Amino acid sequence: MNIQSYLSKKSKQVDQALENCLPGAGEYPKHLHQAMRYAVFSGGKRVRPILVLAAAEAVGSKAQKVMPAACAIELIHSYSLVHDDLPSMDNDTQRRGKPTCHIKFGEDTAILAGDALLTLAFKILSEGSFQAPSQELKRRLEALGLIAQAAGNYGMVGGQVLDMEFQKKHQNASVSDKDLPAMEFINVHKTGALIAVSTRVGALLGGGTKAQTEALYRYGKRIGHLFQIVDDIMDKEGYAKILGAQQSWKQAEALVLKAKQELKIFEKKAATLEALADFILMRKN
Amino acid sequence: MNIQSYLSKKSKQVDQALENCLPGAGEYPKHLHQAMRYAVFSGGKRVRPILVLAAAEAVGSKAQKVMPAACAIELIHSYSLVHDDLPSMDNDTQRRGKPTCHIKFGEDTAILAGDALLTLAFKILSEGSFQAPSQELKRRLEALGLIAQAAGNYGMVGGQVLDMEFQKKHQNASVSDKDLPAMEFINVHKTGALIAVSTRVGALLGGGTKAQTEALYRYGKRIGHLFQIVDDIMDKEGYAKILGAQQSWKQAEALVLKAKQELKIFEKKAATLEALADFILMRKN
Repeated sequence: MNIQSYLSKKSKQVDQALENCLPGAGEYPKHLHQAMRYAVFSGGKRVRPILVLAAAEAVGSKAQKVMPAACAIELIHSYSLVHDDLPSMDNDTQRRGKPTCHIKFGEDTAILAGDALLTLAFKILSEGSFQAPSQELKRRLEALGLIAQAAGNYGMVGGQVLDMEFQKKHQNASVSDKDLPAMEFINVHKTGALIAVSTRVGALLGGGTKAQTEALYRYGKRIGHLFQIVDDIMDKEGYAKILGAQQSWKQAEALVLKAKQELKIFEKKAATLEALADFILMRKN
Repeated sequence: MNIQSYLSKKSKQVDQALENCLPGAGEYPKHLHQAMRYAVFSGGKRVRPILVLAAAEAVGSKAQKVMPAACAIELIHSYSLVHDDLPSMDNDTQRRGKPTCHIKFGEDTAILAGDALLTLAFKILSEGSFQAPSQELKRRLEALGLIAQAAGNYGMVGGQVLDMEFQKKHQNASVSDKDLPAMEFINVHKTGALIAVSTRVGALLGGGTKAQTEALYRYGKRIGHLFQIVDDIMDKEGYAKILGAQQSWKQAEALVLKAKQELKIFEKKAATLEALADFILMRKN
């Protein structure tokens, strides 16, 4: 199992699926659709959708079966970046070396493109064969609710509000040890919730048992936490600023171990998710 | 059938149901939840949710059965007003005589409150008894997809983008007859789509037949159009500016007749929807 080639293959499949569910750049209203596409095709690594696919595979499902959910979660992630970058929020003019959506398309269109991506995510989750047995339909409604929960006021959006409040409060004051619980709360919601729901719904929609789905949800929570710590180490921000790089690495390594422990019940079937945990620890960008 | 007392009774029921699905003002993060509540409880007439309930009643369902969908549509309507009022959009500081959400809570929180309301709408649509028969689950997924379609890039959000483009283009030029098709296209999407989907999903989730659901969808389209024309007459804007008040009234009256024609297959059961059409024509605020 070469994780690099797995990621490359899957991210191409995700890109193709996203292409199929996004409106064409020439479709009316063009300006909106171009902004939506710009936000989605901007060099993202597709971590969340790949976690959805890998979780489904771990419970014995074909990846393609959960591709709509994988795309929906990536659309939600994309919209959140567009709105986070806005002048009244983080006021970022560049992302991954390119102008942010509102710089390129105007603030009004960027806000609406974000709104449209979020709406489209739920549209995609509603689609598919209505000939499916009722067990399958129930799982789809349940997954949709879990994703909305992770993305909304008790999840990602709530985390972003708290992050902004935290930043305003610390504008002129440095952070210290005693800010760690608040920072952890922010990260669990702002970044962690959408990552954790990725493996959770991958397992659920892949037809996993309750025990499998719960184990992969716990795995996803560890991965979300790990992701944030590695980000912070690279950016010399957040945790890393307080704990120092060495202590942060130790914590990251411990999270990889804990994540892998959740995979034990899958035996060999979760080899990809094991490799993914190592990969996130080791990633350089 | 006294339409005023019907509206008053139903809007109280809708408010109570909205109260039950919104986070409490004291819940963390408070600032976000207060902004969400402010946006929803701001004196709206609950036209869309009442259309959902009345459509369900017309097909023989209890109104309470479709209350979650009624609330979801009102949350989507509320979020759209918050985002439309933002400085980069219509830049409105007052709505219904009160400060707009971004004036009261800050632009960042207003954007996120809108995002959270939109997300919550879909969460509500996913909820409910999973013991429901598969026919019922199918209808719920279908209704959810129709609402997302009406709210998204091919519906309300698309209409808002076109409206902004239209306004920029006409900043220094008056509108004329030849702008009517463009204005109609904008209205059908920006305002009409969410109104039309209200009666459509009310009928669908109420268990209506295909013929009933389609008739109520066509009724909803007429009502959406009517709603916009009456708005324009009152504000001396849009259609009314071009056609003149007299001609606009004639068009409005013709739409009421067309709307009522769609109700013929329901015989007496659609008396409320008939009265609603008259009420929208005659409303004074």
